[in-house]
Amino acid sequence: MCNQEALAMVFQEIEKPFHAQTVKFPELKQGEVLIQITYATICTSDLHTYYGRRKSHAPSVLGHEVIGKVVDIAQGGVRDYTGEQLQLNDLVTWSVYAHDHDGKMAQKGFPQKSEDLFKYGHEEIKGKDVLSGGFASHCHLRAGTDIFRIPENVSHKEATPLNCTHATIAGAIRLAGDLHHKNVLVIGAGMLGISACAMSKYAGAKQVFSMDIHTDRVENTFQFGSDHGLDAHFSKDEILHHMKTYGGIDVVIDTSGSAEAMEKGLSILNIGGISIWVGAVYTQRNLSFSAEYIVRNLLSIKGLHNYKPEDLAYAIQFLSETNKKYPFEFLVSKDFPLTQLDKAFESAKSEGNYRVGIKPM
Amino acid sequence: MCNQEALAMVFQEIEKPFHAQTVKFPELKQGEVLIQITYATICTSDLHTYYGRRKSHAPSVLGHEVIGKVVDIAQGGVRDYTGEQLQLNDLVTWSVYAHDHDGKMAQKGFPQKSEDLFKYGHEEIKGKDVLSGGFASHCHLRAGTDIFRIPENVSHKEATPLNCTHATIAGAIRLAGDLHHKNVLVIGAGMLGISACAMSKYAGAKQVFSMDIHTDRVENTFQFGSDHGLDAHFSKDEILHHMKTYGGIDVVIDTSGSAEAMEKGLSILNIGGISIWVGAVYTQRNLSFSAEYIVRNLLSIKGLHNYKPEDLAYAIQFLSETNKKYPFEFLVSKDFPLTQLDKAFESAKSEGNYRVGIKPM
Repeated sequence: MCNQEALAMVFQEIEKPFHAQTVKFPELKQGEVLIQITYATICTSDLHTYYGRRKSHAPSVLGHEVIGKVVDIAQGGVRDYTGEQLQLNDLVTWSVYAHDHDGKMAQKGFPQKSEDLFKYGHEEIKGKDVLSGGFASHCHLRAGTDIFRIPENVSHKEATPLNCTHATIAGAIRLAGDLHHKNVLVIGAGMLGISACAMSKYAGAKQVFSMDIHTDRVENTFQFGSDHGLDAHFSKDEILHHMKTYGGIDVVIDTSGSAEAMEKGLSILNIGGISIWVGAVYTQRNLSFSAEYIVRNLLSIKGLHNYKPEDLAYAIQFLSETNKKYPFEFLVSKDFPLTQLDKAFESAKSEGNYRVGIKPM
Repeated sequence: MCNQEALAMVFQEIEKPFHAQTVKFPELKQGEVLIQITYATICTSDLHTYYGRRKSHAPSVLGHEVIGKVVDIAQGGVRDYTGEQLQLNDLVTWSVYAHDHDGKMAQKGFPQKSEDLFKYGHEEIKGKDVLSGGFASHCHLRAGTDIFRIPENVSHKEATPLNCTHATIAGAIRLAGDLHHKNVLVIGAGMLGISACAMSKYAGAKQVFSMDIHTDRVENTFQFGSDHGLDAHFSKDEILHHMKTYGGIDVVIDTSGSAEAMEKGLSILNIGGISIWVGAVYTQRNLSFSAEYIVRNLLSIKGLHNYKPEDLAYAIQFLSETNKKYPFEFLVSKDFPLTQLDKAFESAKSEGNYRVGIKPM
């Protein structure tokens, strides 16, 4: 297949048009796979990069929420996460990073912070090594990528955000521990927040509450497992008063990244409560709170960035087992052909979509 | 035994002499035990109360680090923590609180925050119910107190701080999780810090580091499992530089309660590190730190106040199994008869002892 060509839309500079570049298919080395991308979605962090809200490499191929079909496999074969040999035409998703499974950080339980991590949709293009992101016709999977077959009952639009949004939330659910008999408050009702509502419910939460400064977004969470909305403008005392009849909040999952929201989340937790932070991946003011309050109330705070491969496995199981109970595919409300990536970003930025999809052909 | 009398030294007002009060032995109700106190130690929180550094009830009998002999048992018998019937003359320690084991908070896993908690050494005296603290000849154990026999190889001076200092640190060790292959930094080298050094080592920590603004206290930790001292005046960068050869710090146990120390502890953790706070039980300035830093470094913060009965069981096992490997009994460097409690407090405050002991007779 080595003479065939792929198309990549290259990110060159903040807010500048993507550059269409054709490249030859790579010669696969041991453990590598070539994927023909079938669908990609624009994640909020792609927008952060494109609009200059965070430091990023350029030139690069953005896009990491992506799925596709196996079209080439390195000699010797490549196994999926479960240990089965991948076959041509398998429809797959994969961990957002390739890592050395025997490396120090992986052994310590933090594969997402491995030495020499290769992160899809984030790598600077060097030489001919272009196909490292989702906004392209093909993606070149490196050895050490955890690859997962997509169950048949999961649609393309449902499956695409699996390896970022849903896997990250699966990591948050892992950190939360057993959710049975517990009330969960999800702060921020974007794509991560919606996933957190549904997955908390799936994981056994007693009642799920959602909070966002946009009340229409809070209302949308009611289709995704949230039982009640909380007004983000409520003071701590108003929330505590309101929550009394429900038994308070045991777990907060913050997807907003707002310092004020995280402080409020801490201030309203029940004794022994846990606050899990996943949204704070951009610069903001420092948080301010009393350590004595944390100590006397037996509170925990856990930060999460990216996820472990096992979290992606859990996220896939969640989507397959809930089997369209939650209308995730409608969150990808619009899509564009790959060649119109500029327009797609404009739409994702300005029209308040949860996700905008990209179809390579 | 109901006609016999006990002596209690009653705390009346901040920095005012204790008042010697004699009371009749109580008539025991179901589940209750009368203890003849054999030794007590003055905990730092007794000093906080006596010198007005925290809100407390008065009049009361202070003292909660205490052991004694069973001298009366309610009809029907009372079982110890392991389920065995207590016998007269058993030498015992007990959880610092009595609680309803079937209550809501106990069922949620937070017995130390139970409804209607009865806390030894902290209760306001009401009527004839005087014998609720350690600075007395006798202590009246309520139903719902977890009582533990003291192993024969543990001396009085070693055993007395078990139900406060060592049990609290056992709770911190529980929150830290598996310590094998991990480096621990203990901040604050008072009684809690010393216990944390030794128990971290017992729990399998690779290397234990200790830090305190008093360098003589840091030196003392070397007899208690600490492998290296860290200068508390080191900046974050100096600590990181110094720690490089050792592989950094995976777990911080803060016993100091100092806002600056807790901030520093967070700033020097390895990826995936855990900071456990047990010292912050007094008012101080708010902490200030970046949530993004917590998130990107996968850090956890866990607050702990008091402990669970299982932690006291672990602490007893620790002292018994280490079998005088660590010279804990020398930390109780001085003792006074119960009737000289005023002098004992003066000594505990001014002479920098880790612990001052009180002998009822």
